Amino acid sequence: MNKYKTIGIIGGMGPMATYDLGMKILGKTEASCDQENIPLLIDCNTRIPDRTAAILSGGEDPVPEMLKSAWRLEAGGADFLVMACNTAHYFYEKICEETGIPVLNMPLETADLLREKGIKKAGVLATDGTCLAGIYGKVLGEMGIEPVYPSEEMQKVVMSLIYDHVKAGKMDFSDLDIEGLIAEMQQKGAEILILGCTELPVAFSILGPAAGLPTIDPTDVIAEVAVRFAGAPVKGE
Amino acid sequence: MNKYKTIGIIGGMGPMATYDLGMKILGKTEASCDQENIPLLIDCNTRIPDRTAAILSGGEDPVPEMLKSAWRLEAGGADFLVMACNTAHYFYEKICEETGIPVLNMPLETADLLREKGIKKAGVLATDGTCLAGIYGKVLGEMGIEPVYPSEEMQKVVMSLIYDHVKAGKMDFSDLDIEGLIAEMQQKGAEILILGCTELPVAFSILGPAAGLPTIDPTDVIAEVAVRFAGAPVKGE
Repeated sequence: MNKYKTIGIIGGMGPMATYDLGMKILGKTEASCDQENIPLLIDCNTRIPDRTAAILSGGEDPVPEMLKSAWRLEAGGADFLVMACNTAHYFYEKICEETGIPVLNMPLETADLLREKGIKKAGVLATDGTCLAGIYGKVLGEMGIEPVYPSEEMQKVVMSLIYDHVKAGKMDFSDLDIEGLIAEMQQKGAEILILGCTELPVAFSILGPAAGLPTIDPTDVIAEVAVRFAGAPVKGE
Repeated sequence: MNKYKTIGIIGGMGPMATYDLGMKILGKTEASCDQENIPLLIDCNTRIPDRTAAILSGGEDPVPEMLKSAWRLEAGGADFLVMACNTAHYFYEKICEETGIPVLNMPLETADLLREKGIKKAGVLATDGTCLAGIYGKVLGEMGIEPVYPSEEMQKVVMSLIYDHVKAGKMDFSDLDIEGLIAEMQQKGAEILILGCTELPVAFSILGPAAGLPTIDPTDVIAEVAVRFAGAPVKGE
């Protein structure tokens, strides 16, 4: 029986991003059989109200349901918690205050990795809610990195990519000016693009390497941090 | 907030099959946003010992850890349980006896669907453990369906497909006599092939429709049964 810590995922924000995080944790763990993998407890709590609506337009507060998940996971034996949703990190401090176990911070870990890489300016591709709430702006600032956002026109391309394409299952992006978006980010000095919405890595894996700009997937970052925090060996190290 | 029952998954047998079941439940639910999906609680318990070793060679009994998962899920609010592992159903009755909530039965639901389809002879593609333990033989028998197994030589093809290819991430199957395997099953009168190991749907999705024989994926079957049992609408109905 392995001695790894049990990872608890506050999930359902959305369900697909939850499974994507689980699979990325699996892919980053050095294991040759089921029993060498990290135990996980996942609360795919689809009763958590929409985070963006709560931030931008006075929608129902998601914190009570997020806390129910946190407490269920803690009671079930989770040793620490992870949230597979960028926007949910707007409520990060409230979750930490009310839980007795550590909660990893996906945007913060991503910003920290960019600092380690010596990045000075990072492009933020995310929903209007994540951008306006300053979720990446805040943590990048703490690391001395300047956030670069798309213009109003190009932000519409990002939103259409997320909502009209990936969430709607339409993987033909030829009607969108992705080239223009990336050219703009490059022109503004972005050295890397943060795919700060869990739908974006799906689109970018199909688009291929963004012309001339590297990308970073926060779900990938937090998966690796979680594997280390659980005490398991990272694949390929 | 939706009123669906909460699905509990006794998972980690293996972890990828667990996420595959979660994604199949998601894909079969009629929902236009996160909140319209079914809440799930998933115990990806990688501390459950190997099921095949316990059945065939006196390996450690997996039931105590399976029960720990069942009880954790029940305490966390799961209304019923599902196991995403064919071989684990060898211990199905023991799990039912010790839990206070219903446990769906994947092989039984699969056999029942085949009976509804009027199938008289079904080919069983599964691990040596699942075949020898009679997991599909038993439930098919209850439904008046005759199970058809590969010859010793062709069973080696199935095992190599599962262990040397899918589990090892080698998706080139050209060294395997898949055509011979399917021809043999057809010759023995199989009207359909049960992909009775969670690795097999992965291989068959790459192989394409098995020459002349339809296939059935028990994970697909149980995902749809679970959506109905939870009280949610099935996509496309």
